[in-house]
Amino acid sequence: MNNRPHRPEHPDLYGFHAVSEAWLNPARRIHKLFLLDQAAKGFESLIAEAKAAGLKRPAPQILEKRNFERLLPQGAVHQGVAIACDRLEECDVQDLIIRARDLPGRQVFLILDQVTDPHNVGAIIRSASAFGAAGIIMQKKHAPELTGVLAKTACGAVEHIPVAYETNLSRTIEVLKDNEFFVYGLDERGAQSISSLMQKPGNPDKSKIALVLGAEGPGIRQLVREHCDALVKLPTQGAIQSLNVSNAAAVSLFAVLGQ
Amino acid sequence: MNNRPHRPEHPDLYGFHAVSEAWLNPARRIHKLFLLDQAAKGFESLIAEAKAAGLKRPAPQILEKRNFERLLPQGAVHQGVAIACDRLEECDVQDLIIRARDLPGRQVFLILDQVTDPHNVGAIIRSASAFGAAGIIMQKKHAPELTGVLAKTACGAVEHIPVAYETNLSRTIEVLKDNEFFVYGLDERGAQSISSLMQKPGNPDKSKIALVLGAEGPGIRQLVREHCDALVKLPTQGAIQSLNVSNAAAVSLFAVLGQ
Repeated sequence: MNNRPHRPEHPDLYGFHAVSEAWLNPARRIHKLFLLDQAAKGFESLIAEAKAAGLKRPAPQILEKRNFERLLPQGAVHQGVAIACDRLEECDVQDLIIRARDLPGRQVFLILDQVTDPHNVGAIIRSASAFGAAGIIMQKKHAPELTGVLAKTACGAVEHIPVAYETNLSRTIEVLKDNEFFVYGLDERGAQSISSLMQKPGNPDKSKIALVLGAEGPGIRQLVREHCDALVKLPTQGAIQSLNVSNAAAVSLFAVLGQ
Repeated sequence: MNNRPHRPEHPDLYGFHAVSEAWLNPARRIHKLFLLDQAAKGFESLIAEAKAAGLKRPAPQILEKRNFERLLPQGAVHQGVAIACDRLEECDVQDLIIRARDLPGRQVFLILDQVTDPHNVGAIIRSASAFGAAGIIMQKKHAPELTGVLAKTACGAVEHIPVAYETNLSRTIEVLKDNEFFVYGLDERGAQSISSLMQKPGNPDKSKIALVLGAEGPGIRQLVREHCDALVKLPTQGAIQSLNVSNAAAVSLFAVLGQ
């Protein structure tokens, strides 16, 4: 995920929320701002806001529809705004653990084991940010870029929640356990329901949790599963028992953080 | 949603789960079965199963890749199987209320107020089926077809949960209230959190619930919102507080049915 050459003339992020959150993120280095002529007026207040905050930001390039859309993937829902920018600084699981210490309440990480669909990963990042998770961990080899349709789907949340990349998720789980995290794998073979992890007000038992989610179909890989402390399942029933993976992630996050 | 001419040569459903669940659904009238040559062997057991169940099913048309893909929308993830079929019989809210009486436990309906994206509606139907909701209600004028990418995303759940179409959702809400349903609108202005609706084991207070979800951005329309008994919000925080609508639906379903 790291060998893409940087192309400053090509937008990395598009869509109003994805762009505006990046635009105001001091940690984000931005090289170009592309605006569709009709969208230029609507972006003026964000330009003023960045200036007032002392952020170094490029002047906009205002383009007609044809030239604007030529820069983007076909069918991209861009809302007339796009930027070329650097990636955010990479972090690893140790960085996440250190940052999480300052959080009030439960510290919760999501570990994505080969979940790669950018719509799903984008929606998961959005939910993780909204429920106040401490970070997301993905496998370096299979992680999708945090740009384009993924960042659009995440609605700006990629600016607000740290994402770490690790080579070996089994080893990452062991590092988390060494740091007093209890690691649950979401798997239909789980003996207990995710409901059992509901945080009781005033009684935050298990204050440090990591939840592992696998890809739809194959689920969590066997070796990764074996490193989990326990497996938990969703309380589903009937003919179609599995959820879309981003839906499963949202339910799990609610169960451990939603009080 | 009802004025599409029937085109028996064009597949309505594709993808393994969408097709196999429809194939074995006695309520589904099927006109054509299209199989990609490589997928024919994998479908044999389903053909035998339908035969053993006495279902009237067409013989497969086995096609090469080029001819198979010509029948489908570009980029469709079809897994080599597709069918042309009739719609399932339409139902309305009264039908849903009658059917729900036989359910054990809480009776829960989802009402979608102008949620139209087929990926989102498909994922919502899948989650509603998995959590044992009693049915889904959509506005006739804006409801997406239960075919193609929606049915693919629903993974076969369109065969298992009834979907009703109503012209006027405000009136539908009044009908539900007359039948002792308590109607909650999911809205960030809600005074209480969706967590407060968690079903306590052995204490099923409010045993009949309808949850209204609006489109992302505009939310529930004002008039529909005013007909709800109460508004509830998700327990989210931080810069990006809203969830993708299918994620919000999954969390809500878990809150009212996930014990």
